[in-house]
Amino acid sequence: MALPREYVGENCSIARALEVVGERWTLLIVRDAFYGVSRFSDFRDHLRIPRAVLAERLNLLVEHDILARVTAPSGRDEYSLTVKGLRLWPAMWSLITWGDEYYTADGQRRRFTHAGCGGAVTAEAGGACEACGARPQPDELTVHPRAERSWAGEKTDPVSRALSVPHRLLTPIQRTPA
Amino acid sequence: MALPREYVGENCSIARALEVVGERWTLLIVRDAFYGVSRFSDFRDHLRIPRAVLAERLNLLVEHDILARVTAPSGRDEYSLTVKGLRLWPAMWSLITWGDEYYTADGQRRRFTHAGCGGAVTAEAGGACEACGARPQPDELTVHPRAERSWAGEKTDPVSRALSVPHRLLTPIQRTPA
Repeated sequence: MALPREYVGENCSIARALEVVGERWTLLIVRDAFYGVSRFSDFRDHLRIPRAVLAERLNLLVEHDILARVTAPSGRDEYSLTVKGLRLWPAMWSLITWGDEYYTADGQRRRFTHAGCGGAVTAEAGGACEACGARPQPDELTVHPRAERSWAGEKTDPVSRALSVPHRLLTPIQRTPA
Repeated sequence: MALPREYVGENCSIARALEVVGERWTLLIVRDAFYGVSRFSDFRDHLRIPRAVLAERLNLLVEHDILARVTAPSGRDEYSLTVKGLRLWPAMWSLITWGDEYYTADGQRRRFTHAGCGGAVTAEAGGACEACGARPQPDELTVHPRAERSWAGEKTDPVSRALSVPHRLLTPIQRTPA
């Protein structure tokens, strides 16, 4: 049974937040936008999400001003996080660190470092840089590839390839030859 | 179309976290557990969630060790957050503050205070107590009723009534006469 988009009588901030972003694909799309993904085909190939579902979720995110859609000179639509979308980073970070702790082996975790000084940014330090103590904004974070890479099912789409080397959040995904 | 529970190839902490808690009802159940809700009927009446859906979600949360199920002396099953469940609080708090900022009018927000000293705990202070600077754990937080209460559709179930006065998180919901 499909859940209604709105929870009648749920006059609660978290219920309202979940009406928009409380759907797994939606949050994975937002995660990818933090990685710097902007193109429909890159979201699709990285998430392996059906085209119609992706289109619907992107429309919802644009409608709620979490993503902005602009038409690039090439004629292609591109998506980027708005201020409202960027402010989802603490929720994203909290879910990443919880997932790391309980569902991800050490070597399979992506480390984050403070791009300013190279210090580790960890859950233990509450999202602060262990070297300089700053609380980096997402665009000041570098996400690192997993230490262990020799697992079955490694993906070869442009986003996965871009994330196989250290990548600064919110910088556009560069396409490298396959 | 139902989404698969597991994202094939999504070897990412957030994807794994969302496999378990990335469903709106699930996170609202966890929110209610932070409020101190423990009984099936209280979850059901507060969330207005179909019985079968609630049973399925509670089973999933128990299976993943986010909630513990114990049989009370009355013979009734009761649910409480495990350590793993309690560690979802930062994600919960981040979603509450984001929902507050973008979807909830001032008078409709629930304020949180530090039970130790009474100071306000706000998103602006990054979840720290504005009076003493501590970062309260959820059981040190008091959630307050909304300032504006005269809206249509006010709920009268036991949980809504318990939350119509200041309530310390994680303390059991008391049943008051209707």
